[in-house]
Amino acid sequence: MQTNPSLPATHASGGEVNRVAVIGASGYGGLQTLRLLQRHPNFAITFLGGERSAGKQWSDICPFLPLADDPVVQAPEPEHIAAAADFAVLSLPNGLASGMVPALLERGVRVVDLSADYRYRSLDAWSEVYVQEAKTTQRRDADLCQEAVYGLPEWHGPDIAQARLVAAPGCFPTTSLLPLLPFLKQGLIETDGLIIDAKTGTSGGGRAAKEHLLLAEASESIMPYGVVGHRHTSEIEQIASSVAGCAIQLQFTPHLVPMVRGLLSTVYARLRDPGLTADDCTTVLEAVYRHHPCVRVLPVGTYPATKWAKHTNQALLSVQVDARTGRLVLMSAVDNLMKGQAGQGVQCLNLMAGLPSTAGLPLEPFYP
Amino acid sequence: MQTNPSLPATHASGGEVNRVAVIGASGYGGLQTLRLLQRHPNFAITFLGGERSAGKQWSDICPFLPLADDPVVQAPEPEHIAAAADFAVLSLPNGLASGMVPALLERGVRVVDLSADYRYRSLDAWSEVYVQEAKTTQRRDADLCQEAVYGLPEWHGPDIAQARLVAAPGCFPTTSLLPLLPFLKQGLIETDGLIIDAKTGTSGGGRAAKEHLLLAEASESIMPYGVVGHRHTSEIEQIASSVAGCAIQLQFTPHLVPMVRGLLSTVYARLRDPGLTADDCTTVLEAVYRHHPCVRVLPVGTYPATKWAKHTNQALLSVQVDARTGRLVLMSAVDNLMKGQAGQGVQCLNLMAGLPSTAGLPLEPFYP
Amino acid sequence: MQTNPSLPATHASGGEVNRVAVIGASGYGGLQTLRLLQRHPNFAITFLGGERSAGKQWSDICPFLPLADDPVVQAPEPEHIAAAADFAVLSLPNGLASGMVPALLERGVRVVDLSADYRYRSLDAWSEVYVQEAKTTQRRDADLCQEAVYGLPEWHGPDIAQARLVAAPGCFPTTSLLPLLPFLKQGLIETDGLIIDAKTGTSGGGRAAKEHLLLAEASESIMPYGVVGHRHTSEIEQIASSVAGCAIQLQFTPHLVPMVRGLLSTVYARLRDPGLTADDCTTVLEAVYRHHPCVRVLPVGTYPATKWAKHTNQALLSVQVDARTGRLVLMSAVDNLMKGQAGQGVQCLNLMAGLPSTAGLPLEPFYP
Amino acid sequence: MQTNPSLPATHASGGEVNRVAVIGASGYGGLQTLRLLQRHPNFAITFLGGERSAGKQWSDICPFLPLADDPVVQAPEPEHIAAAADFAVLSLPNGLASGMVPALLERGVRVVDLSADYRYRSLDAWSEVYVQEAKTTQRRDADLCQEAVYGLPEWHGPDIAQARLVAAPGCFPTTSLLPLLPFLKQGLIETDGLIIDAKTGTSGGGRAAKEHLLLAEASESIMPYGVVGHRHTSEIEQIASSVAGCAIQLQFTPHLVPMVRGLLSTVYARLRDPGLTADDCTTVLEAVYRHHPCVRVLPVGTYPATKWAKHTNQALLSVQVDARTGRLVLMSAVDNLMKGQAGQGVQCLNLMAGLPSTAGLPLEPFYP
Repeated sequence: MQTNPSLPATHASGGEVNRVAVIGASGYGGLQTLRLLQRHPNFAITFLGGERSAGKQWSDICPFLPLADDPVVQAPEPEHIAAAADFAVLSLPNGLASGMVPALLERGVRVVDLSADYRYRSLDAWSEVYVQEAKTTQRRDADLCQEAVYGLPEWHGPDIAQARLVAAPGCFPTTSLLPLLPFLKQGLIETDGLIIDAKTGTSGGGRAAKEHLLLAEASESIMPYGVVGHRHTSEIEQIASSVAGCAIQLQFTPHLVPMVRGLLSTVYARLRDPGLTADDCTTVLEAVYRHHPCVRVLPVGTYPATKWAKHTNQALLSVQVDARTGRLVLMSAVDNLMKGQAGQGVQCLNLMAGLPSTAGLPLEPFYP
Repeated sequence: MQTNPSLPATHASGGEVNRVAVIGASGYGGLQTLRLLQRHPNFAITFLGGERSAGKQWSDICPFLPLADDPVVQAPEPEHIAAAADFAVLSLPNGLASGMVPALLERGVRVVDLSADYRYRSLDAWSEVYVQEAKTTQRRDADLCQEAVYGLPEWHGPDIAQARLVAAPGCFPTTSLLPLLPFLKQGLIETDGLIIDAKTGTSGGGRAAKEHLLLAEASESIMPYGVVGHRHTSEIEQIASSVAGCAIQLQFTPHLVPMVRGLLSTVYARLRDPGLTADDCTTVLEAVYRHHPCVRVLPVGTYPATKWAKHTNQALLSVQVDARTGRLVLMSAVDNLMKGQAGQGVQCLNLMAGLPSTAGLPLEPFYP
Repeated sequence: MQTNPSLPATHASGGEVNRVAVIGASGYGGLQTLRLLQRHPNFAITFLGGERSAGKQWSDICPFLPLADDPVVQAPEPEHIAAAADFAVLSLPNGLASGMVPALLERGVRVVDLSADYRYRSLDAWSEVYVQEAKTTQRRDADLCQEAVYGLPEWHGPDIAQARLVAAPGCFPTTSLLPLLPFLKQGLIETDGLIIDAKTGTSGGGRAAKEHLLLAEASESIMPYGVVGHRHTSEIEQIASSVAGCAIQLQFTPHLVPMVRGLLSTVYARLRDPGLTADDCTTVLEAVYRHHPCVRVLPVGTYPATKWAKHTNQALLSVQVDARTGRLVLMSAVDNLMKGQAGQGVQCLNLMAGLPSTAGLPLEPFYP
Repeated sequence: MQTNPSLPATHASGGEVNRVAVIGASGYGGLQTLRLLQRHPNFAITFLGGERSAGKQWSDICPFLPLADDPVVQAPEPEHIAAAADFAVLSLPNGLASGMVPALLERGVRVVDLSADYRYRSLDAWSEVYVQEAKTTQRRDADLCQEAVYGLPEWHGPDIAQARLVAAPGCFPTTSLLPLLPFLKQGLIETDGLIIDAKTGTSGGGRAAKEHLLLAEASESIMPYGVVGHRHTSEIEQIASSVAGCAIQLQFTPHLVPMVRGLLSTVYARLRDPGLTADDCTTVLEAVYRHHPCVRVLPVGTYPATKWAKHTNQALLSVQVDARTGRLVLMSAVDNLMKGQAGQGVQCLNLMAGLPSTAGLPLEPFYP
């Protein structure tokens, strides 16, 4: 762990090493990013930034995740970040990344932002959805909203590879869009009446202590929340509309599940051609994702458990058809902190650095 | 615990006491039934029956649930049951109850069956859905299928009160039908395009050891199963069609959730009149269930956690409307072993014995 | 729910009804107390007090536990409490009860305090152990510390029955002392070298949000905490010494277990007479607790799972002997919010009101 | 996945690759071994053996853990194993490995056995402890029991490196011995009065379905089992005695904890020199394990959560001293399927193949 260009010898054997800063390190997104980058053959963590924990020794904050040379967390000054790193991963609450990104880009640092700040192409759209955050920030970066690339590598890979700024999508949009987009793109399903019933583990709510995320409260219970109008509805609709080529309005209902990690989306759609079978639809998915190792299509009749995706950067997809109702049921499971957040961020970093998308990313679960 | 008419003194103060047999006592349904009846002011357990555990002392099977006088489990002979009890609750695997019910009815014992054997009005329908069970039984009781009353007390209360034979519905149909039926009955929603996305705890899978229900497998994971064509689809459709007055085909997808108890159904439907608000729809539910204490309608914007229903015989309902999509989202939470099984059975018993429906049934959760 | 003497009709049939105030209602101890008292045949909740939630409608705070007539939470003014209630249960953070108790006693209200404020016979001892709390309070109630009765009903029943002020012990001391005291009293074990290895569910940490109690942190993990010098060590030693008749110093190590409720203490001691068998030791426990229905002694070789005690006010005890090492292993399981807190409080209330100790208290678990 | 010497290209860059057979692949030990070896830079899985699953395609058994080229599981014939592999990891029920090991050794295959078959130096000792298994096998391999090396790499590293046959210890002995042995070896603690209070996740009970390991049973509960006389007592005593140089009899009590993975041992001992501090004792551990990266000693006052060790091959140790009682409290946390089983097996393989002990083994947790 160093802030100057002489990089750790341990990476030397792996060829050229890219220097990366991680900002917001002690939340779940930051922790997972560090865990992945520390073992990555082509990246070296050369700056560790945090607002509240600046000045503290890493091991005092996180005794459970030792980092090489036990660095001190630094205030995230763009000058210092740019001096130390070529890339930066921002894992900050919504509204904060946009206060730092312009200065980083100016200084030549390429950024992967894990927050929602650049996921909308229009600043106005963002301000409408993130009303509270918009009130407390004075964003003037509408151009960056335009420029930012939506970081879903299976759909925007070439753009990501060239991007200065990538807005990596979170767990709900990633899990919902991956199975849905192939069918929208090929016009195989009706564009109205889409329903996404999503189920997430509690780590998606972050590491800050909140009563409803206590084990005593969340354990042994499942509950819906944000029913009708949840923020991610509009983000999913934006991408779905763009791929479908028409405006899409859909139903999105998240549920809180008593588990640490994992996210499952069950998506319901009506087939345009009721003669399509589950085999046909599986073939559609396989054709689209054949060369994308971070997506795996399961055989007909095998349904994904989120446990199968845990600690991997892989989304597991399955599709079933009900000939009686002419309806498609899509199932999609990810680890919400991996393919649903930090793993996806590293996958974007890989593309930006010209590496294979899976470099440094586990694809097999520890089971059970 | 006695098999003769001199009933325990502890019940004397409660007035007339009804004698009840519990058959299949060591499964989850049986255990829960015993737990409820043992403290019931108007019932006394006077026969404890089990095939495999016949001859064993109760405390040797279940040291954790002491029963008065520590009875010996007996072979479920109809003669002996009829001598000891006026009512019987059968908690047996599908296909077994129908082998015992005719003999019990003949001898004047009134029966609440917790299995699926009498939930279909037609024996043929049952045989189609329960193919495996139909193969190993030689049922000739089509008349009893006709006679049996579907034991959803909020909808079939008067019939249950008079019935000789009640087929208590299980957790999925109960949870799904309670919020749905009022809207179907009043013609407020489209009858096609209904989607039920259901989530259940693992105790719904029973007490027999199965690999996928091990803690190591089921914990920290959520997964869909029985996608398209799950048995309960047809049972739900039968009742929904009967109330709606037209044939209904719907989508039903169950999911296994890492918790012991609890079941949540999220139901999606299209409003016929898109002008209806969440307040309007909540009023619809309140009007229907006002005098039914085992159903509670939550205020708009409060969504039910299954934890709120745990260890109670109450279903918690909530409804939200998406004006954009013209869609209704119904949410319904129960304890799958209480209002979803044994509690419902006792509620039926109460009606059959002329008691208030909530006699002996807890309505408040232990929280957390 | 009323603050005047005309008590709810629902209790009328149960004979004389005692009026009780619950202060600190929205924490886990308060919630559990309300749940028990609301269904109690001989108590009526006539005052609901809370500092932070004063003025709020109960259903707005706790939609999941409806109370009769949905009362408004009131500021806990001793005058008002005394006007409305004969008894008060205080479920407050340590240090706060002692600010309210003198005024309540003066006004004739008999108090069960669930905090540690009156568990030590000496105010100095309390001030030494609860250093932080002692700094922010100016306690002058050394006499009340002397007067207060330690609320372990199986050992101090007659004193509790007469007491104005009862300090109900919490989960760790209750679970550890119940199996240990009989052997200390009869001089069957060495008084040095005692080891208590205790395991608790996370609800013992309270309802206030803390990072380490989040599901994402506490789930799928077990960890020791407060190793050497945990506060409850001295409380356990005080009672153990008093019963043994000599000063006892012991080892107490608590562990945090990924479950909501439940507490297990495994206690290790050396037998004075190495010839004693597990049967002998079980007989010792049975003799002591024969007439105490809130303690159940399990047969030799049956070990208590905390699940067996969940939602009951019963402690389950078991004892095993290792003839090789001359050592006794005592096991003791309770529900930490019931026999370990609120249930014990109600058990004390029962004795104070001249009722059977189990009035209104469940003794059988919901299983599973 | 190939059974001939042309090894997968992906391993080519890592230098010489060792061919290894995994027998008993679909249990938890086998699955974890496969997961580790598949990504190992110096091993290639060249034989996949299983009795019951012989002839089946791997992906049909385990859709969640894809293996390269989706091999067919083969009957574990020693001839075929020897033709395909230089090393074999046996993950079989107790009693089965000894039926296969002699034939493998004869054919030059070096073996790591994860069962208990060769953990005792004397066949008689094994037969006494594993009575049931001894009845159904006709073992004549007392010499192999003598020859086998106990596979605790931090204590028997050089012997393991040379061994033909390594008996890798399981989770309870590993976790208990690692903190204890340094103090026994240096004579810092009394050798009598040792107490090990251990807590394990349910995956330690294996993948075969058993009622008490169901989520519905084991979740939300902790319970002791095998109290006094558990099999692992004698195994721990054998190694502890050998290191201490005198016969040791200790108390070992396992508990079942509601989590998938993780094992914590809390060990109590009396200091010979009561003047030793926690700092002194921490220094003792640090000195012993300084060059052993699979053991990490935590600073005084930091206690290990099993979550910190999850998915790593590291044991986390901590020690605290109670000056009042003259007692040492040792805490030790591992992932029971990694350092407690399969990871330890791979660590042994590494030493046998002349590799660094940590090759291919993760040392950082995914957190949370």
